[in-house]
Amino acid sequence: MPERARVGFVGLGIMGLPMARNALKAGFAVTATNRTLARAEPLKAEGATVVATPKEVAERSDIVVTMVTSSPDVEAVTFGPNGIAEGARTGLLAIDMSTISPLATRAFADRAREKGFRTLDAPVSGGEIGAIEARLAIMIGGEADDVARAMPLLQTLGKTIVHIGDHGAGQACKLANQIAVAINNLGVSEALVFAAAQGIDLEKTRQVIAGGAGSSWAMQNYAPKMLAGDFKPGFMIDLQQKDLRLVLDAAYADHVPLPGTSLAHALYTALQKDGGGGEGNLALIKAIERLSGIEARVR
Amino acid sequence: MPERARVGFVGLGIMGLPMARNALKAGFAVTATNRTLARAEPLKAEGATVVATPKEVAERSDIVVTMVTSSPDVEAVTFGPNGIAEGARTGLLAIDMSTISPLATRAFADRAREKGFRTLDAPVSGGEIGAIEARLAIMIGGEADDVARAMPLLQTLGKTIVHIGDHGAGQACKLANQIAVAINNLGVSEALVFAAAQGIDLEKTRQVIAGGAGSSWAMQNYAPKMLAGDFKPGFMIDLQQKDLRLVLDAAYADHVPLPGTSLAHALYTALQKDGGGGEGNLALIKAIERLSGIEARVR
Repeated sequence: MPERARVGFVGLGIMGLPMARNALKAGFAVTATNRTLARAEPLKAEGATVVATPKEVAERSDIVVTMVTSSPDVEAVTFGPNGIAEGARTGLLAIDMSTISPLATRAFADRAREKGFRTLDAPVSGGEIGAIEARLAIMIGGEADDVARAMPLLQTLGKTIVHIGDHGAGQACKLANQIAVAINNLGVSEALVFAAAQGIDLEKTRQVIAGGAGSSWAMQNYAPKMLAGDFKPGFMIDLQQKDLRLVLDAAYADHVPLPGTSLAHALYTALQKDGGGGEGNLALIKAIERLSGIEARVR
Repeated sequence: MPERARVGFVGLGIMGLPMARNALKAGFAVTATNRTLARAEPLKAEGATVVATPKEVAERSDIVVTMVTSSPDVEAVTFGPNGIAEGARTGLLAIDMSTISPLATRAFADRAREKGFRTLDAPVSGGEIGAIEARLAIMIGGEADDVARAMPLLQTLGKTIVHIGDHGAGQACKLANQIAVAINNLGVSEALVFAAAQGIDLEKTRQVIAGGAGSSWAMQNYAPKMLAGDFKPGFMIDLQQKDLRLVLDAAYADHVPLPGTSLAHALYTALQKDGGGGEGNLALIKAIERLSGIEARVR
């Protein structure tokens, strides 16, 4: 790339704000907006141009990153009034880093192509801490020349950056990841509640399992917090449930039953009451504890 | 320990034979027996004394290891005709390294105490390769002085050796481990079949998931074999099903529902036809493939 792309950010939430900050730090010219504009203020102080709408972001950018919550949100900021499409010149590259439906992603790619701009889906894994420390895993769907164009920017945001395949492939890979995340959490939850019911030392049990064939990222990182009763997010149940609904919708569209994923989703649903959805996804153990009346805590 | 304990092995199967061999190599005097005596021949050539019954093993040993399949098997070789109890002098230590019921284990400990000999439960994780290479994880239930007595022997058989708690605690920990193993396999299976249904690159998807919060021992070690269609055991489904039944029996006895474990057990049940139970436990993916009609293979 002969000269540095001008970069836009739409969506400055828990993930988008630190990502925009990392692009700024790396020397990109950044234009940003957010539904709640006050949220953009700190970025302005750090050198970004803050504007009122995604349209204005697009007018001032070669590459625009969207980092919002849902498929309708992406549609609104991309194709809605004052959206990216209204401000995009021919060849603009819109990279959606939200986690949304692969089906919607493919439809958005078609609509963008008709309007003369390009898209990539590039959802991430690694959470707020990964965004802050630029250690995100980034799963990309779209065309190779657009991936090449995006790479200098993406390398300032993440560490493991993989071009999975065509439009939607990044989202599909992210959803496959969420299946593993949710079901591994279920494995940790049932193993620890069983151990508690057996009355055995929970921390020793966790250590032995974490050292062998029953290990998982969740057993190593979440289980100690579960045993301590620390259910702060991390990754909120409400957001994981949004992702699991995307998984199940996409799976059911192909008549692919995912019984373990359905079970995890159902158990999480029981936790989404009275603000429980704002806890971290590791709180899944509470569902197994409620069912059994046994708590797995080290005190 | 002033002098080296004389060690006996009852059960020279896939696990017992290499374990007895490691004890021999470490310089222990070994007496061994097996239901099918021919299986003991190679051990004789390597310096072990081979006898016809567990009773004779006990007569010649200070510590006797049992490594058989099920709770009834342990009961038979320990308390049945020509069993360990008949040959045990006061203070003999019987270490059961099979995976059996924690409830049965506690009952066996009581019966042994009445007869004047001691017991430990010390089930292992790590499979045939772990047994051969003396890298087993060993989870111990029983009394501390017996654990101390067993330690020089156990250190020749395994690497991670943890005294979990009282009689049965080793078995309970092993069963908790099996919960995590089975459910993590389900997570890998559903993630890969979903990815296959989405038509995305399976090896890239696996790599990204294995590098992040969806990772597990199964994603790192089993998923490549699943994608290659290599379902050789490893750890046979029939044996894992035996363990999962122990889990569910022990859990139901306390009215602890384990919905994910029950689901994994049910899916494995579907695979136990026409010799399918002889495949490795990673073949769980075949159940999800059958349900969906989609195969997750890299060819």
